[in-house]
Amino acid sequence: MIIVVKPDAREKDINEIIALLETNGLKVHISQGTQRTIIGVIGDKSRLAETPIELMTGVEKIVHIMEPYKLVGRAFRPEGSVIDIKGRQIGGHELCMIAGPCAVESREQIMKAAQDVKAGGAKFLRGGAYKPRTSPYAFQGLELEGLKLLREAADSVGLLAVSEIMSEYDLDNAAKYIDVIQIGARNAQNFRLLKEVGKTGLPVLLKRGIAETIDEWLGAAEYIMSEGNYRVILCERGIRTFESSTRNTLDVSAIPVIKLKSHLPIIVDPSHASGKSSFVKPLAMAGIAAGADGLIVEVHPDPKAALSDAIQQLNAAEYYELCDCIKQLAQIMKRGYGDE
Amino acid sequence: MIIVVKPDAREKDINEIIALLETNGLKVHISQGTQRTIIGVIGDKSRLAETPIELMTGVEKIVHIMEPYKLVGRAFRPEGSVIDIKGRQIGGHELCMIAGPCAVESREQIMKAAQDVKAGGAKFLRGGAYKPRTSPYAFQGLELEGLKLLREAADSVGLLAVSEIMSEYDLDNAAKYIDVIQIGARNAQNFRLLKEVGKTGLPVLLKRGIAETIDEWLGAAEYIMSEGNYRVILCERGIRTFESSTRNTLDVSAIPVIKLKSHLPIIVDPSHASGKSSFVKPLAMAGIAAGADGLIVEVHPDPKAALSDAIQQLNAAEYYELCDCIKQLAQIMKRGYGDE
Amino acid sequence: MIIVVKPDAREKDINEIIALLETNGLKVHISQGTQRTIIGVIGDKSRLAETPIELMTGVEKIVHIMEPYKLVGRAFRPEGSVIDIKGRQIGGHELCMIAGPCAVESREQIMKAAQDVKAGGAKFLRGGAYKPRTSPYAFQGLELEGLKLLREAADSVGLLAVSEIMSEYDLDNAAKYIDVIQIGARNAQNFRLLKEVGKTGLPVLLKRGIAETIDEWLGAAEYIMSEGNYRVILCERGIRTFESSTRNTLDVSAIPVIKLKSHLPIIVDPSHASGKSSFVKPLAMAGIAAGADGLIVEVHPDPKAALSDAIQQLNAAEYYELCDCIKQLAQIMKRGYGDE
Amino acid sequence: MIIVVKPDAREKDINEIIALLETNGLKVHISQGTQRTIIGVIGDKSRLAETPIELMTGVEKIVHIMEPYKLVGRAFRPEGSVIDIKGRQIGGHELCMIAGPCAVESREQIMKAAQDVKAGGAKFLRGGAYKPRTSPYAFQGLELEGLKLLREAADSVGLLAVSEIMSEYDLDNAAKYIDVIQIGARNAQNFRLLKEVGKTGLPVLLKRGIAETIDEWLGAAEYIMSEGNYRVILCERGIRTFESSTRNTLDVSAIPVIKLKSHLPIIVDPSHASGKSSFVKPLAMAGIAAGADGLIVEVHPDPKAALSDAIQQLNAAEYYELCDCIKQLAQIMKRGYGDE
Repeated sequence: MIIVVKPDAREKDINEIIALLETNGLKVHISQGTQRTIIGVIGDKSRLAETPIELMTGVEKIVHIMEPYKLVGRAFRPEGSVIDIKGRQIGGHELCMIAGPCAVESREQIMKAAQDVKAGGAKFLRGGAYKPRTSPYAFQGLELEGLKLLREAADSVGLLAVSEIMSEYDLDNAAKYIDVIQIGARNAQNFRLLKEVGKTGLPVLLKRGIAETIDEWLGAAEYIMSEGNYRVILCERGIRTFESSTRNTLDVSAIPVIKLKSHLPIIVDPSHASGKSSFVKPLAMAGIAAGADGLIVEVHPDPKAALSDAIQQLNAAEYYELCDCIKQLAQIMKRGYGDE
Repeated sequence: MIIVVKPDAREKDINEIIALLETNGLKVHISQGTQRTIIGVIGDKSRLAETPIELMTGVEKIVHIMEPYKLVGRAFRPEGSVIDIKGRQIGGHELCMIAGPCAVESREQIMKAAQDVKAGGAKFLRGGAYKPRTSPYAFQGLELEGLKLLREAADSVGLLAVSEIMSEYDLDNAAKYIDVIQIGARNAQNFRLLKEVGKTGLPVLLKRGIAETIDEWLGAAEYIMSEGNYRVILCERGIRTFESSTRNTLDVSAIPVIKLKSHLPIIVDPSHASGKSSFVKPLAMAGIAAGADGLIVEVHPDPKAALSDAIQQLNAAEYYELCDCIKQLAQIMKRGYGDE
Repeated sequence: MIIVVKPDAREKDINEIIALLETNGLKVHISQGTQRTIIGVIGDKSRLAETPIELMTGVEKIVHIMEPYKLVGRAFRPEGSVIDIKGRQIGGHELCMIAGPCAVESREQIMKAAQDVKAGGAKFLRGGAYKPRTSPYAFQGLELEGLKLLREAADSVGLLAVSEIMSEYDLDNAAKYIDVIQIGARNAQNFRLLKEVGKTGLPVLLKRGIAETIDEWLGAAEYIMSEGNYRVILCERGIRTFESSTRNTLDVSAIPVIKLKSHLPIIVDPSHASGKSSFVKPLAMAGIAAGADGLIVEVHPDPKAALSDAIQQLNAAEYYELCDCIKQLAQIMKRGYGDE
Repeated sequence: MIIVVKPDAREKDINEIIALLETNGLKVHISQGTQRTIIGVIGDKSRLAETPIELMTGVEKIVHIMEPYKLVGRAFRPEGSVIDIKGRQIGGHELCMIAGPCAVESREQIMKAAQDVKAGGAKFLRGGAYKPRTSPYAFQGLELEGLKLLREAADSVGLLAVSEIMSEYDLDNAAKYIDVIQIGARNAQNFRLLKEVGKTGLPVLLKRGIAETIDEWLGAAEYIMSEGNYRVILCERGIRTFESSTRNTLDVSAIPVIKLKSHLPIIVDPSHASGKSSFVKPLAMAGIAAGADGLIVEVHPDPKAALSDAIQQLNAAEYYELCDCIKQLAQIMKRGYGDE
């Protein structure tokens, strides 16, 4: 941490700053520039977390040198994390595919979807039971019944189950019926939920918030990891920008940035990013080509009959074609897909 | 609702669309343009909510004519809502002032803050008990103890108590100890929490999400109102943009837009919008000059000693000066402040 | 300037950095932290402008302590600039009002507009002669003829003339016919034009670019001032964000930020910010209440007949009402309006 | 075009609207809904371009059914455009590679760069002669001398020359020395320059503005095409968002959107999008995988010695590696690279 001193600060002001730092067990290093004096602060700054040094007379600004996170940082595991979920890996050689309908709608629908998903080479079945809808009058999901159907469908074909949980109340059910808890964009900074999810020990698929910076996203992952739960998978799903041609703007640059800053695996959600089924394949390809570890894609046996997000779901044929292309791309990226 | 037909649609495609609409009890009105055919849809469109007409062969796009919300819309109460909270009003002639520290830190601190706040003419005392912090290692608030202290301080000077609730678990305590539940920007689309808050019947101060459009914000208010709780106050607190000179970008335009679209009162939070105490007064003045119904401002007896958001809190003297200016401005705006 | 050294840098890498700095006549000050080594750089850094220190082995990042601009910075004129234009001042005690139609359309229209504008207390008449239109098929302005008509109308009532110039080709005409050159949002970083405008010595009204940070905006002003032309007035006209309820998002926070960083006067354009005549008054009031030095407002004798931006122009009655409110607000802000 | 009538409009208001439309030679089609009356407008709406129907009493809003552009629209050339430049094609089977240094710095530098660029399989050499720099004190390019050196270098190895032009003054020189005129992000809506560039008949590489919507970008292309110049190549180079980890946010979704809306070819600039050489390859791969027709990449013989944008330029080895990967990816995309 560096403290830039105001040009008109008096010696007394500077001495007060130094005294405060030394009281907190820190060493200082003063550097006299031609236009500004700078105070370098050496030692464990966490003691200063609640001390508003910015408010001291004489302080112009504070410059932080180190990133604010600990467990999520690349330095914590320079080789990268491979998340193991009942023998399936995310972040290893094999690209991960998570697919399934936006929402679990019926036994028939999810059973059929599970077969399609499996046939394309995915290892994980997704399906929403609790749906965050912009309007209170829209279909809100089958809730607990949806989780049970998802479990049954996943088991019927040997897939693992992924579903979004929106409330601490539902974590017990999650633990009973699903293998990976998804945290959606709208709860990306619901810190209470993040902590509780951290305590469950279940693997977490953490979507990026709609206007969350990469540093805030990693901060949210730190909330989960700080509870001792290290199985976190990040998911880029598009951010909000001024452009309205697509539902969101897929930030592919986030992939190399995350690889640089963190050891956690990152996958891409081209369905929510684009909001349109015909854009899903180009965005999925872009994500993998940029280095993502996998995809989460919406696939529905009959998109026209879907109860939510109908226009962004692939049908089985479109999904198989996507899987074929991903398999080819995997080779160029020196990754595997569907081989195991 | 209007359906624009694709230029290459066949008669069969158009007939299928019409048949679907008529099956749902709707009337259609066809208009043949030089370049496009347009289908006007007449009747109660809510039956179509889960029918993805966009996916039908022949449909180019759907244009919605009416706003998606019902209870929050201006048409529901053209004269505007005045929210009554234990005899205090928000949205009436008197401008509302809510003030107090970012977080309740101690009995001494909140009691002193309450006296300052009262002296400036405010009717509501704010103070955070559950704090949403970007880092899991930062001060997280005094929790239940904080709510009790806030109640005690508010009662000691005759103010009403406002505090943020982040979890359904804490709603029972909220009902016991506070008068207005604040929903923060990070939970602005935590729909489960919104529904539960709606059920409590307590007045709700609903902050705008960090990248929430005005229509989404009104949709969130609709969640609360659809549970029968009509006492909702909107709060503009700055949105996220590319500009980083201030913590957020206060969207003053939202004030006349809300006045046009909705009957709900709207107040402004200049403290979170700016993130800097010296910018609080200009932004507070701007908000009232644009037509806001009040302010929520962070005031701390000793900002330098604050455990969170220290650099954006006013001290008592700065707060009194702000109140004086607001009182003058109120006259020009034909509103009152501190008279009652 | 501070250089943060990579954790794994070797002594050789650090010595190379130091050697490069010393070759450029700079002194260094090394500070050994617990996790990072930091090199403080002392002296005139402008010599380093073209040296990519970021690329040297061993450099993690560069932190700039000082702002990049010189002439526009507050330190250059701590008391603030008052711009004198033929005896009229902008940035002094009197709030400045610039008003007039979006475009000069005819002799009759601009003569009538000039009378209205004068009657409301403005000192400056605006009117576009060269119009930047999104579509090449839309009305592009009367060009040179428009400048001449604007001059005639301004002279007829004793106002000064303000108009947008989009090309270096038109600067000679500008010098002949108008008193203040306006640079529009779309040319905010047209550096060639900025330099040429700087050379004319004419006062410049510099609008903020549609997605220009405050620092970039000040950099654009620096381009003009670096040519010896110090009469620059900044104009906040709304920035582009995700919110689409208004044409742009007026960034009122920019006003106190500019006052802190720069000595240049700043005015507000509520017409382009809102894009809707009924929002002009609330945004104008907000701008002045936040500390702006004046306004530029679109006023048209008959908005329904306007050839461009019809829906955001005030008619004479709406303009007079705005002027009355601004006059009242001026008193609270300890400024004058229409007194001189 | 559809006109939505206000719920409280009188018959007289509606008749006035209809009369205005019919006066302009348009037919109307009235549709009576349960909550709103809608007027469909049939015929050539261009006559209404300057008539502010929005301002008529009785009009709630206008809904445009058709896109505002003509020549750039997909319908104009459904099979897509292949731009021919002296026998080289952009938009055809072969992926196009444009590479070279940010700025032409010296004869030696650009000759060496040309050889490297050619060796990697590119057909076009880029190099800036006029540089748009944020600070007026930074290196501004070699100007005319730079164009001449670029020409010489391109000819020495049989490449075509691409360079940015910032002013109408320089178009004559452009026509003499270069093969493709680049319009940069900061001049993306400099309409005067766009028109003049249109008149030259030279192929134009049109970068997207920093906060330009896709529709505005196509509007800028329409400016060039409306002058009879149909050889326009679009270039996605990243947009401005709240995220600051990268210089800009590459909007890969723009690629399928452009392919849907327009017939023009689109290439990607991963260098400016990322601002960091190590991110260039992932973003370049993402762009091609999303369906782009080519790349423009910054390559410098010795990036550490570069006079501008040093940290985002590739060295020769990094560039060759990128070309190898693009060649592999081309096969999957059923495109060619470096075969001809």
